[in-house]
Amino acid sequence: MKIDGKAFRTIWPGDDGASVVIIDQTKLPHRFETVTIGTVEAAAHAILTMQVRGAPLIGATAAYGLWLALRRDASDEALAAAIQFLAKQRPTAVNLRWALEEMRQAVAPLAPEVRAAGAFAKASAIADDDVETCRLIGVNGVPLIRALAERKAGKPVNILTHCNAGWLACVDWGTATSPIYQAHDAGIPVHVWVDETRPRNQGAALTAFELGRHGVPHTIIVDNAGGHLMQHGEVDLCIVGTDRVAANGDVANKIGTYLKALAAHDTGVPFYVALPYSTIDWTVASGRDIPIEERSADEVLRMYGQHTDGSIAAFSIAASGSPAANPAFDVTPARLVTGFITERGVASADRKGLLSLYPERGESAA
Amino acid sequence: MKIDGKAFRTIWPGDDGASVVIIDQTKLPHRFETVTIGTVEAAAHAILTMQVRGAPLIGATAAYGLWLALRRDASDEALAAAIQFLAKQRPTAVNLRWALEEMRQAVAPLAPEVRAAGAFAKASAIADDDVETCRLIGVNGVPLIRALAERKAGKPVNILTHCNAGWLACVDWGTATSPIYQAHDAGIPVHVWVDETRPRNQGAALTAFELGRHGVPHTIIVDNAGGHLMQHGEVDLCIVGTDRVAANGDVANKIGTYLKALAAHDTGVPFYVALPYSTIDWTVASGRDIPIEERSADEVLRMYGQHTDGSIAAFSIAASGSPAANPAFDVTPARLVTGFITERGVASADRKGLLSLYPERGESAA
Repeated sequence: MKIDGKAFRTIWPGDDGASVVIIDQTKLPHRFETVTIGTVEAAAHAILTMQVRGAPLIGATAAYGLWLALRRDASDEALAAAIQFLAKQRPTAVNLRWALEEMRQAVAPLAPEVRAAGAFAKASAIADDDVETCRLIGVNGVPLIRALAERKAGKPVNILTHCNAGWLACVDWGTATSPIYQAHDAGIPVHVWVDETRPRNQGAALTAFELGRHGVPHTIIVDNAGGHLMQHGEVDLCIVGTDRVAANGDVANKIGTYLKALAAHDTGVPFYVALPYSTIDWTVASGRDIPIEERSADEVLRMYGQHTDGSIAAFSIAASGSPAANPAFDVTPARLVTGFITERGVASADRKGLLSLYPERGESAA
Repeated sequence: MKIDGKAFRTIWPGDDGASVVIIDQTKLPHRFETVTIGTVEAAAHAILTMQVRGAPLIGATAAYGLWLALRRDASDEALAAAIQFLAKQRPTAVNLRWALEEMRQAVAPLAPEVRAAGAFAKASAIADDDVETCRLIGVNGVPLIRALAERKAGKPVNILTHCNAGWLACVDWGTATSPIYQAHDAGIPVHVWVDETRPRNQGAALTAFELGRHGVPHTIIVDNAGGHLMQHGEVDLCIVGTDRVAANGDVANKIGTYLKALAAHDTGVPFYVALPYSTIDWTVASGRDIPIEERSADEVLRMYGQHTDGSIAAFSIAASGSPAANPAFDVTPARLVTGFITERGVASADRKGLLSLYPERGESAA
């Protein structure tokens, strides 16, 4: 997508042939800075500290990170160690493990001297595949928005989203935002309610940033407000992303997603989850088995913001001495999800729906 | 309640006999500062800017504000104008209108030369009455906590609360916190999950502050986290306050309350609302008729916090140029509320339950 008229992906190979470049998302929306990553340790650090985040982008970054590891040491031992090291940086998003397994299968059969080259080719293929997959999610999601627009007599379709499942969470297009961008570009009037998404404010910081730069009308709201808006007919549709979908259709996503799904269910608002095939974990029978990352209390007690003098700093916002807990994801039961939007189409949020899109997984699913 | 060993109320008469003193709650938790209010305009400003907030405290401040107005001009015209002026500062909390109506009834029959003295006496009575009412809410709520404690074999009863319905929202004790303080003081082990409560963070700033100063174990969480904790059995009970209860039991409270009530209902966690009689609006048939205050977008886009150098400043936390919406309250349907805790006892959240506690309102209710 474009920033100030220039097309960007979220990750791309460095000109030196020995690095990848990312957008440092911890600096957004106040500063647009890129970081050049030349080692597997730097790739892991970027994942852990959320310089890159979003399930698909985490996967792509890990893939390039494995390439960087193999440039230094392409032995079997180094390959296994690098995969283990990268996989442990974030526990909830399955794309991280998926991408590393794809890489392992592509690289392990190769002779060590060509493994690095093979890893670069495969990582690039994973990134390109994500772009095309996300584009197709948009193609498949647009008809849902168009159908709502036809009932609104020219008024915008109001879409609520949580966290950032935008192009900044992927390599391009986004998952939840791909139908929104494509509807907007097709002239369908849309307006997005952007959940702030505490504690890291990915909504207010990232989703609002990217929608604004693309010219999509939107309004930031606190995470508390969505239910009230749904009660008052101000939301026509919810679309969110996900970090892992279980084989029964349960959805792990950013903490707070469950609350919005409950409100949508209570008020009759359709609640869709947009995802690429790589986010489905066929080995996990239900959401109960998805590990939920507990992050630092500091993310709750302190925030980053821009001072009136332009400086960016952390400031404490809570009573001193008070402890905080910070579960980063929750699981939305499949019964609250209207449907899935994937690169293959739209289906119900259950095992049957998933298998209707991916019949080849009929035997391997948990 | 006590701060550093010294007993405080949230509002008290100034030593000069011509003012009231409040705690400036916009400075908490970083600084404890008091403000001396000598005019009705200053009282209105304190209400509007949320130096005082919380339905009962807004009522008490308005009562003293009317006294200050009558000290300057005790004519019928001035009385009517001051009531109108104060009433319009916050639209949702019914206690504001309730307290002003109580004041009018006490003062209007008096000769102008004794109206100010009568107003001071009545305002003080309203404040004292709030203290006793809140104490009784605690007395009536403790058995609910004790019953849960008996099933927990010495482990703390985990209570989730939203916003600040603590002593800082009242004159003393609090509404939602009164049972918590009294249970804690009685040796029942309790632990409070404190919802941060964006956009103004009354949970992290005020509830955590007052619980911490009183020694009650607590943990701050973002507003997004409560549903996840309820799904995992980490919440035994929710208790919140309210700004207005309709005659059918619908509950207006700080934005986001509805989402927590949905999660409690979905997971089988009891969800109680604690309130004094003055918060019931018998003239409003259902929550649909309660006006919802829309506050400044700036409260969403900027936050106050303490810098590492100790200074307190506003920081912008969102993408520049993005608009924000800021509805300050939502309505939780009575069907999601397990029961009401009032100074008269505990009852079901419906017309029948309310009338069982207040049978004298049987004819006047909407």
